[in-house]
Amino acid sequence: MTQSLKGIGASPGIAVARAFFLATERFVPARAAVADGKREVARFREAVAVSRDEVEAIRAAAEERFGADKAEIFEGHLMLLEDPDLIDAIEEKITDEAVNAEFALHEVAQSFIELLQSMEDELLRGRAVDIEDISSRMMSHLRGVPHMDLANLTEECVIVARDLTPSDTAQLNLAVVRGFITEVGSRTSHSAIMARSLEIPAIVGVGAAIYDVSENTVMIMDANEGLILINPTTEVLEAYQVKKQKDDQRRIGLAKLKDQPTLSRDGKQVELAANIGKLEDIQRAIDNGAEGIGLFRTEFLYMGRSSLPTEEEQFTSYKFVLEKMSPKPVVIRTLDIGGDKELPYMDLPKESNPFLGQRALRLCLDRQDLFRTQLRALLRASRYGNLKIMFPMIAMLEELLEAKRLLEEEKQNLIAEGVQLADRIEIGMMVEIPAAAVSADLFAPEVDFFSIGTNDLIQYTMAADRMNENVAYLYQPWHPTLLRLIRLVIQAAEKEGIWVGMCGEMAGDATAIPLLLGLGLHEFSMSAGSILPSRELIGQLNQAQWSAYADQALRMRSTQEITQFVEQIRNGVNS
Amino acid sequence: MTQSLKGIGASPGIAVARAFFLATERFVPARAAVADGKREVARFREAVAVSRDEVEAIRAAAEERFGADKAEIFEGHLMLLEDPDLIDAIEEKITDEAVNAEFALHEVAQSFIELLQSMEDELLRGRAVDIEDISSRMMSHLRGVPHMDLANLTEECVIVARDLTPSDTAQLNLAVVRGFITEVGSRTSHSAIMARSLEIPAIVGVGAAIYDVSENTVMIMDANEGLILINPTTEVLEAYQVKKQKDDQRRIGLAKLKDQPTLSRDGKQVELAANIGKLEDIQRAIDNGAEGIGLFRTEFLYMGRSSLPTEEEQFTSYKFVLEKMSPKPVVIRTLDIGGDKELPYMDLPKESNPFLGQRALRLCLDRQDLFRTQLRALLRASRYGNLKIMFPMIAMLEELLEAKRLLEEEKQNLIAEGVQLADRIEIGMMVEIPAAAVSADLFAPEVDFFSIGTNDLIQYTMAADRMNENVAYLYQPWHPTLLRLIRLVIQAAEKEGIWVGMCGEMAGDATAIPLLLGLGLHEFSMSAGSILPSRELIGQLNQAQWSAYADQALRMRSTQEITQFVEQIRNGVNS
Repeated sequence: MTQSLKGIGASPGIAVARAFFLATERFVPARAAVADGKREVARFREAVAVSRDEVEAIRAAAEERFGADKAEIFEGHLMLLEDPDLIDAIEEKITDEAVNAEFALHEVAQSFIELLQSMEDELLRGRAVDIEDISSRMMSHLRGVPHMDLANLTEECVIVARDLTPSDTAQLNLAVVRGFITEVGSRTSHSAIMARSLEIPAIVGVGAAIYDVSENTVMIMDANEGLILINPTTEVLEAYQVKKQKDDQRRIGLAKLKDQPTLSRDGKQVELAANIGKLEDIQRAIDNGAEGIGLFRTEFLYMGRSSLPTEEEQFTSYKFVLEKMSPKPVVIRTLDIGGDKELPYMDLPKESNPFLGQRALRLCLDRQDLFRTQLRALLRASRYGNLKIMFPMIAMLEELLEAKRLLEEEKQNLIAEGVQLADRIEIGMMVEIPAAAVSADLFAPEVDFFSIGTNDLIQYTMAADRMNENVAYLYQPWHPTLLRLIRLVIQAAEKEGIWVGMCGEMAGDATAIPLLLGLGLHEFSMSAGSILPSRELIGQLNQAQWSAYADQALRMRSTQEITQFVEQIRNGVNS
Repeated sequence: MTQSLKGIGASPGIAVARAFFLATERFVPARAAVADGKREVARFREAVAVSRDEVEAIRAAAEERFGADKAEIFEGHLMLLEDPDLIDAIEEKITDEAVNAEFALHEVAQSFIELLQSMEDELLRGRAVDIEDISSRMMSHLRGVPHMDLANLTEECVIVARDLTPSDTAQLNLAVVRGFITEVGSRTSHSAIMARSLEIPAIVGVGAAIYDVSENTVMIMDANEGLILINPTTEVLEAYQVKKQKDDQRRIGLAKLKDQPTLSRDGKQVELAANIGKLEDIQRAIDNGAEGIGLFRTEFLYMGRSSLPTEEEQFTSYKFVLEKMSPKPVVIRTLDIGGDKELPYMDLPKESNPFLGQRALRLCLDRQDLFRTQLRALLRASRYGNLKIMFPMIAMLEELLEAKRLLEEEKQNLIAEGVQLADRIEIGMMVEIPAAAVSADLFAPEVDFFSIGTNDLIQYTMAADRMNENVAYLYQPWHPTLLRLIRLVIQAAEKEGIWVGMCGEMAGDATAIPLLLGLGLHEFSMSAGSILPSRELIGQLNQAQWSAYADQALRMRSTQEITQFVEQIRNGVNS
């Protein structure tokens, strides 16, 4: 009987092959006294040198294979191998305590790893993985145990491991490795990101159940679904071979679109951007051909910690994103806290209807200290890329003007302090409150762009909490009322010559995209995984024709009429 | 020094006069054995007969003075004096227990009063006051103590009493009685209603402090503010004389408008109706010249009790209102429970954002048993007046169509049962969700009228909880966005030839009325006290001119601009 396991599909695709177990037992060395400290230090230095040569080779290969961008991680490894904080500390421990190099390496590396893992800064936490990677490499050399080289694999296989280090992933022999499955990890772990970059299927976070699989067992991994089938029957195997073929073809087709512009069939160009909520998401956006970041949610900087982030911490994050995406645009939304997102350390009052409460910009205008800190960090980071600042939850012109006034004040303060800023920073606003949509013409002369936040706009327009199941039937993205509001916003924008994006879930929805294209939307910002399929879809659509269809849809009375209408046309086009 | 007391201003106006205390000690008779039961019953019958003659005389005088409408209460008293449940019970008690008539009367009347006071039905609770009134009258006659006759007062005075019975109030000698002040009571007690009908100032619910006032003390009562000044200084007295004169003039002017149609200066007719939430409010609506009930909230029928009201209970209330107002229209809104209004016995799920939750029609469509009961009660009551049924919280056409379908089903069921219904019942909907306003044209062909609920419409359009102080600045009735939505609704209605009312607080607001008139609103429904001032205001306005001003206002960018604009024009007109 076919046995199955579930995990997180971290990189899509289907693979069929035998399991290859990557031994990843942790070696914990015993403490041993050494008489000759100098000799022990020399032994350690030798291990560092050999490791450095190895990493250098991997880096060069990775650069050739994935580009300088992805190889950067190994520059980091090389720097660690020369880092006095780490290397000198190990040597001192050997000398001062007269202990064996293995023990000193393990103790010092572990203390660094634990320290980094306790950090609030995500970038720093990520460094723990790098230290683990290079210290295990040095340990192999000290022990004379060959470091497992995944480049030497010769048989088709799916790698099964506790986790893969960046070095492991970089060295995978793609001629034979069909995918990998790990016990731990998430969509955002290094190995998951590398898998997507390598375009091989990966399923992570399967749990200890992976150790029940025997070496050489035949497995099907369907990473689209996060599903692993062990010892499948012939029928299942055959069915998956067919499925895999189709999937591969589609993937190859989509991958070709990665660095292409987004053009409709009749040549109208739009922009497909990504919504991100964590620094780790950036890589995924890049991997999926995002033409920019259409919505960078800054809440993550404020959450899961015990105090407000400093200006410096924020600056570092904003700079990181801007540099990473440069010269592509990054729309950073100022803090949208309140509503369903709470910050325990801010002690915000409990509200009866938090979605209708003092959230986002409303709170920022009330708590100017907090807001000014964010604005300063944004302004300081502006010169590292193409920054656009966006204000959320605006209902009245006065709110926008006040936010702009505070921004201008901080800009003048920074200039007076001699800080260099970008020459030009676009300022925009979310359109997510009905008042902002209905009166978009009042706001248009005061901003450089609008971004329609459909999740909230639908919620308020229909007066239905999007988290409340009992009123879920009212959450209708394709409702004629919503299309009318979108048209109002686009018309107001066109009159002022500014652009309009959309960063709600609707922007990545295959039923909505044709109508949105028809209505004249300029930028579609969505989860990274939807970008390539959306680019493909838009390539099949005639914008001028869909503009006429949108006019028809706007005269309809219900969601049902509109969705049926779109489906009929789409089926006609595809048939 | 001037001493002051505060109470509830139950009938407006200012009075200056000496205090006259109305003795209202409750007489509690002792039980006494009587040998001759027959003689005691005869003595009681004599008291009943004399009381009947007296009440008949009061009734006739009241009818002449206030009209048949107000005199009806004494018809009720006469019926009680012939009611076997009450009268026979007292006689039986005298005979069976061989007790004195005073004791039997007190015991039986008290048991009735207590029973009635415990009732959930407001109409029945009101009957307790009537029984108290007639039983105290009978008691006076039994005891040979003259019933205090307020018709005999000869000196100018303000009456101070524990409470006034309907009989007391009906007999007030208005040549000398300048107002009254009571220890107990509320805006809706009988005496308060009568005071408004008599157009004399009344302050009720002052508390036991009134007994600190000495007989014949000079008092100022400012019932507009619920304020009583005892032994005022000459300066204060003079100031209040001036204030009273102005107030009286204005009141006389307004009173003249009571039975007038509502016409703008250039002859455009609109309708001023009242919002009511309890049966007792009807009288106030009538007293204030309401041309109909624009919003009858049915929630009171469901609240403050332990189970759902029956179809029969609801029918009785709807019939009462319809008969009372007939032939004027009564717009009854179906149940709007949920949101901030809870019903413990219904055990509704706790919601994170109740204002965006399963309230009003959403709940009714889910709980059809409850909804059908209300619809049946409404349909059955329809033939007793001019009923219009209104559905709240509609966002999508499907909801309206479903509500109409259920109404039609119950109509057919009742017809099949042989129940007689009104020939025509208008069906309307609240426009209080942005979606309904933006897409009013989709709804207009399916209803006979719209009623704009500004309280909720503002709340949802601005995404700001109207109960949350921190976002109170967003609650802006005169915001350009709101005016645009109102115009959209009126335009959609005009195209279909249906009428548009407004039943939110904005409809009675003196700043909003000129613009609403200009926008072409047909019906303004407000709290009863605002009706006459609004009729006066509309009489000063040129509708055609305000239509042009409204066009100007619609192009403005903020509430401030609009309110200043309206004020400037109004000041120009008044200067």
